[in-house]
Amino acid sequence: MTRSTDAKEARLKAVRRGMRDIGAAAAIFGLSSNLRYLTGFTDEPGERLLCLIVGCADEPTFIVPELYAAEVRARTSGFVMRVWRDGETPEALLSGAAKGLSGVAGRILLDDTLWSTFALSIQRAFAGREFGLASEVMEGLRLRKDEQEVGVMQRAGEIADRAYEAVTSQKVAGLSEIELAGRLEAEMLAHGAEGVAFQTLVASGPNSAMPHHRAGARRIEAGDVVILDFGCRVAGYCSDVSRTVVCGDAPAEVERVYDAVRRSYVAARDASRVGTPAEAVDRAARDVLVKAGYGEQFVHRTGHGIGLDVHESPYLVEGSDERLEEGMTFSIEPGVYLPGRFGIRVEDVVVVTEEGERPMTHAPHELKRVA
Amino acid sequence: MTRSTDAKEARLKAVRRGMRDIGAAAAIFGLSSNLRYLTGFTDEPGERLLCLIVGCADEPTFIVPELYAAEVRARTSGFVMRVWRDGETPEALLSGAAKGLSGVAGRILLDDTLWSTFALSIQRAFAGREFGLASEVMEGLRLRKDEQEVGVMQRAGEIADRAYEAVTSQKVAGLSEIELAGRLEAEMLAHGAEGVAFQTLVASGPNSAMPHHRAGARRIEAGDVVILDFGCRVAGYCSDVSRTVVCGDAPAEVERVYDAVRRSYVAARDASRVGTPAEAVDRAARDVLVKAGYGEQFVHRTGHGIGLDVHESPYLVEGSDERLEEGMTFSIEPGVYLPGRFGIRVEDVVVVTEEGERPMTHAPHELKRVA
Repeated sequence: MTRSTDAKEARLKAVRRGMRDIGAAAAIFGLSSNLRYLTGFTDEPGERLLCLIVGCADEPTFIVPELYAAEVRARTSGFVMRVWRDGETPEALLSGAAKGLSGVAGRILLDDTLWSTFALSIQRAFAGREFGLASEVMEGLRLRKDEQEVGVMQRAGEIADRAYEAVTSQKVAGLSEIELAGRLEAEMLAHGAEGVAFQTLVASGPNSAMPHHRAGARRIEAGDVVILDFGCRVAGYCSDVSRTVVCGDAPAEVERVYDAVRRSYVAARDASRVGTPAEAVDRAARDVLVKAGYGEQFVHRTGHGIGLDVHESPYLVEGSDERLEEGMTFSIEPGVYLPGRFGIRVEDVVVVTEEGERPMTHAPHELKRVA
Repeated sequence: MTRSTDAKEARLKAVRRGMRDIGAAAAIFGLSSNLRYLTGFTDEPGERLLCLIVGCADEPTFIVPELYAAEVRARTSGFVMRVWRDGETPEALLSGAAKGLSGVAGRILLDDTLWSTFALSIQRAFAGREFGLASEVMEGLRLRKDEQEVGVMQRAGEIADRAYEAVTSQKVAGLSEIELAGRLEAEMLAHGAEGVAFQTLVASGPNSAMPHHRAGARRIEAGDVVILDFGCRVAGYCSDVSRTVVCGDAPAEVERVYDAVRRSYVAARDASRVGTPAEAVDRAARDVLVKAGYGEQFVHRTGHGIGLDVHESPYLVEGSDERLEEGMTFSIEPGVYLPGRFGIRVEDVVVVTEEGERPMTHAPHELKRVA
């Protein structure tokens, strides 16, 4: 997303305010969605330490390996940069940062996804301090999406819809799960995605009963139930959609389970109102499946927040009394898994508004038969 | 890779031996290449804690979120499994593990890429203990690849070669970097890759001067230098190759820099002999570019080890006196970057053998002109 410098400064200001509120001296961000949110820059994490240190008072400082330096300079502004070269280590730069903060009381917050190898280096450099997680501050900031964020998420949803339509109108029987996943991903890239949001899941036949099965070598055949779970990124923001299709004709039991999952999905949508606790949405979905006799086979929560991360707050899960607010975006994805046989999942991401919830993806919810 | 249970047991045994040697009580692995190496199972890391605790004495214990449970059971054997459900937290399971190890002296090793959110939970559960990194043990074990590992890496290399050939024989001008990256990735999947090894880099025109530029919206045009840097996975093992092509005719300076980079690459290949220190390979590559007047523009190390991780030991970098051994696999990838103008990089992964080094990829090294 092209964010004006003003918007980025407002975000950094909010982070500092949040840190002061909870008694943190600094937050250290790695190559993560938090870094992208604050600076516009990110990349896949790697073995070279690249981090942004945001102290309560000073200018934020980037510690950057030299081969990223040109790009960080080109894509960000308003930061101090300390560069280290291959053949050196960044330890001295971390110690320098620790020294600079030695007069500031408070905990050091670590980016939640920062690798342990860096966390232990930071703990050595900041010896004697207490540590917390950046999410203590960032979660609240990122929870409600603004109009621009919702706009790019809708675009990411449209691209996923088009890929689904393209892939399921062609013959599917005979393809391996990986081939079908590859087609979905290529279609999303061809329609303007910046990348995939996560490794596409294609779970066919008995594999569909494993909710976290990725795509494998298994070839899809007539009679298979196939779960497709995929999404892409636009300006860093994710889409995430699941549809269950059947290759050829569906046995009556598949129809029955599908119908229950679909009703569960609708119940969760209906419950997604401003002010509702997150766990109430989970309960609405779960109640339908319990009544249908599949409560034990719905082995995961009903949904997860989504934005710059595929999974972020709010989580629609038992025990969460977090109340839904306008601008929150999350998946609704009840599923039933019958081990060794088949599984069914239906998923869309919705955004909560004062007028009700609105889906980001629009592929039909009827059980689709594919060739 | 389908590893016999025996081979996995031998690996676990080696880990335990390594832990005893350095005075560690346990190692805790997340969703990582180390976990795949030891158990055959891995996945993208996510916000739910999934880890394997390998103690010096007890049976190794998986802590697993319920929705992964069926898959972990199906894909692994010989492990104790402790399952937690959405709506619970894994804290009690971590505390239980800490209690079980309370009589065993020694440090707790954290998987290097384990997220800080989990590292801090583990540090709370194992309060009062010292922490180290799993790489202290794992690096040595994974450094030399056996015949089976080299075999799948060669296969991953062949697939990358075929994708390169397919993509560069078609018209490239007019495509965006992202579209070209998408084509490379789709070709690799179509030729049997299990997935991409990393997000494909396509850096065109001035972007090629930023060594870590990913693919963006820029459209490739006549006269552009384009760096393609890509790779795929077979059975978890990675390929990684870079070629620089020119769209249409190359200015004389591009030819000159290309020639220097290619000679630098050859020098590094020639230096890659059993017993040579890693830094000597870096020096061999660097000396050529210094003599050609581009020493300052070669801003990164000459190469990195590769296997289940795209970047792992050994690193070919100044200051590393690690001696090359048979079975080590690493990239050789000198590059020259002229900011604002263009960059050149040539890269292959090689395996060290007693008879000399052998490349995993075979695309020609001449500067290729694409349409």
